[in-house]
Amino acid sequence: MPQHHPRDLAEGDPFGPDTLPYGVFTTPDAPDRPRVGVRYGAHVLDAAAAAAAHGSAYADLLAAPTLNPLMAAGRPAWQAVRAEVRGWLDEPYFHPLEEVTLHLPFEVADYVDFYASEHHAANVGRIFRPGGEALTPNWKHLPIGYHGRAGTVVVTGTDVVRPQGQRKAPGDDLPTFGPSLRLDIEAEVGFVVGTPAPDNTPVPLSDFREHVFGVCLVNDWSSRDLQSWEYVPLGPFLGKSFATSVSAWITPLDAFDASRTAPPARTYPLLPYLDDSADEPGGIDLRIEVTINGETVSRPPFSAMYWTAAQQLAHMTVNGASLRTGDFYASGTVSGPEPDQLGCLLELTRGKGPFLADGDEVTLTAWAPGANGARIGLGEVTGRITPARTAPPGA
Amino acid sequence: MPQHHPRDLAEGDPFGPDTLPYGVFTTPDAPDRPRVGVRYGAHVLDAAAAAAAHGSAYADLLAAPTLNPLMAAGRPAWQAVRAEVRGWLDEPYFHPLEEVTLHLPFEVADYVDFYASEHHAANVGRIFRPGGEALTPNWKHLPIGYHGRAGTVVVTGTDVVRPQGQRKAPGDDLPTFGPSLRLDIEAEVGFVVGTPAPDNTPVPLSDFREHVFGVCLVNDWSSRDLQSWEYVPLGPFLGKSFATSVSAWITPLDAFDASRTAPPARTYPLLPYLDDSADEPGGIDLRIEVTINGETVSRPPFSAMYWTAAQQLAHMTVNGASLRTGDFYASGTVSGPEPDQLGCLLELTRGKGPFLADGDEVTLTAWAPGANGARIGLGEVTGRITPARTAPPGA
Repeated sequence: MPQHHPRDLAEGDPFGPDTLPYGVFTTPDAPDRPRVGVRYGAHVLDAAAAAAAHGSAYADLLAAPTLNPLMAAGRPAWQAVRAEVRGWLDEPYFHPLEEVTLHLPFEVADYVDFYASEHHAANVGRIFRPGGEALTPNWKHLPIGYHGRAGTVVVTGTDVVRPQGQRKAPGDDLPTFGPSLRLDIEAEVGFVVGTPAPDNTPVPLSDFREHVFGVCLVNDWSSRDLQSWEYVPLGPFLGKSFATSVSAWITPLDAFDASRTAPPARTYPLLPYLDDSADEPGGIDLRIEVTINGETVSRPPFSAMYWTAAQQLAHMTVNGASLRTGDFYASGTVSGPEPDQLGCLLELTRGKGPFLADGDEVTLTAWAPGANGARIGLGEVTGRITPARTAPPGA
Repeated sequence: MPQHHPRDLAEGDPFGPDTLPYGVFTTPDAPDRPRVGVRYGAHVLDAAAAAAAHGSAYADLLAAPTLNPLMAAGRPAWQAVRAEVRGWLDEPYFHPLEEVTLHLPFEVADYVDFYASEHHAANVGRIFRPGGEALTPNWKHLPIGYHGRAGTVVVTGTDVVRPQGQRKAPGDDLPTFGPSLRLDIEAEVGFVVGTPAPDNTPVPLSDFREHVFGVCLVNDWSSRDLQSWEYVPLGPFLGKSFATSVSAWITPLDAFDASRTAPPARTYPLLPYLDDSADEPGGIDLRIEVTINGETVSRPPFSAMYWTAAQQLAHMTVNGASLRTGDFYASGTVSGPEPDQLGCLLELTRGKGPFLADGDEVTLTAWAPGANGARIGLGEVTGRITPARTAPPGA
């Protein structure tokens, strides 16, 4: 058993007793036994071991190699497990973070990416469609989204190989092939679905908490040159599908009860299934920080998002589409109104670059104010760019 | 054991000894034991039972509840199993088709939908973007595609509930909510990935057969009113995500060796990773028939597709994206040059409708010429439209 006592939290540590995010970890003595852990300060509680020792009814869920069984168990189980975990914080089932290996915490079913920041959508609209309206006519009536590639969602710390593909500069007659020259980040917040919903049972705004297990950070790596050449008319494809990095820790949605904030005033009345004017505030006051090679480049405010995660879930299912445990959706790039609040380099550099260089390391962190001055954290997302593959296909 | 002798194939039966598609079925006496079957004429060979009786090395793969273990085993295993199955066609392990229940034959990992018919893309471009160029500038340089919703892929025979959502007619000021008024079909051909590929190992055209396990029919149900309001700028989302129907039978790719055909002449030279001019012909001469309520409405020719399935696979992975067993991609709507060869009602009615009514039943069938006059079939895809859900969300 490790010797460190984990209760000595640093002042303002965003992973205190009100956060308690879940992840999946292994230890060097049992590298083939991934199991559920809970982050507490700079330590990981071996929730599987604690649950087994206490004869918890949830021991099997916590011994699983992914969070999916716990996620599928539903909100009453999430609440019961969280209460049990709180009771284990004085016990000896901890490992220092630096001594464990963290894994992708859940199996992704479908991955959907939204586009919910008005500032981001307008900025990108001006860059990608100069001369046109910044926002498309639908933007303020529905949360625009599209499906991404679930199979390339990777956990924080995974290197990102520079993608290759077709790109065509405005002055070129024909597209050329090669490494992306405009490799970008997108700072986003992700929502992990626990409780499934059968087809043709749309999830109303009021059932958001019954279905969403937790929250994490997302870096939706984007190749702007591949994207701008390919995306009309069916949307982003290879410009996004090479990698999407997520936190190793999923912070329970309930941890943000004191962090709720009202979304911006709506320009148009919303259709009833999206009208949240009578509901609890749908925003979350998460303050994101983006660093590149250790230097802060932006502080995007999640509170500025026009569309909330509850609206996105309601929209995603209103056509009758089912939800599965492991469905994952991201907010879209978080950008605020100020020049130091933009969530991607495309906006930060007004389309001109520089974009990411080989060797660059990008890290996203975030916290929200909790009760009594506490901070509620999301697990960081970091990734380093490695050079493009140079061998031809098949080699 | 059933009494029928399955060797009495009807003249021209597309499910003869050169086809032998795989599916997953249950029998009334063992409804909880889905297992692998092979279609032969109007019968299903219980491949799991035959393999067990013969002590086949592949018995475990064939006793599995989905095709994924067999798909993951790789092409040498696919060839060996096919040879064993041929040897079991005189044996007593058959059930009449009408006495078994067919299930979704594989677990879908990621689902990608392409847009590979020039006729379809140009027809739709003229309808959705009147006054603009019919084809976008990228169309002849890369196979345009986008990710769809894997969780709503359903097996043939599943009813399709009319989706609801936002739509805005050109004369309306604001969007309205309700059942789709322009519900359409898309007749497509789907390709099922067996052998995975790790990230950053693009699949060259020449490795297509190593990765693709088999072929099926796809009806990519589409709500044109939801789609046209939502799809700019990030592509189709709710207009497509409510249901995608696939065959219960996956025909092995190798069954189409005698059905290969050259794709249309290319307008521009292709970049090397897409240049198939020196390869085996990449098209397949599948003749599709679309019936609505028993009446033939179209005969789309798959041989007319501009982009081949091998090119789509090469493109999908050229940016470094990994492939998983169960990845599934569809061709896009198959439309030929003639008015009776169009693969969706949008084109067949020049955008005017009528579209699908509640109660309409749509069936796709297809076959390709094989060796010695044989026909090689794809399993049919059928689905019936049921009325939209009328309860409000949450009820």
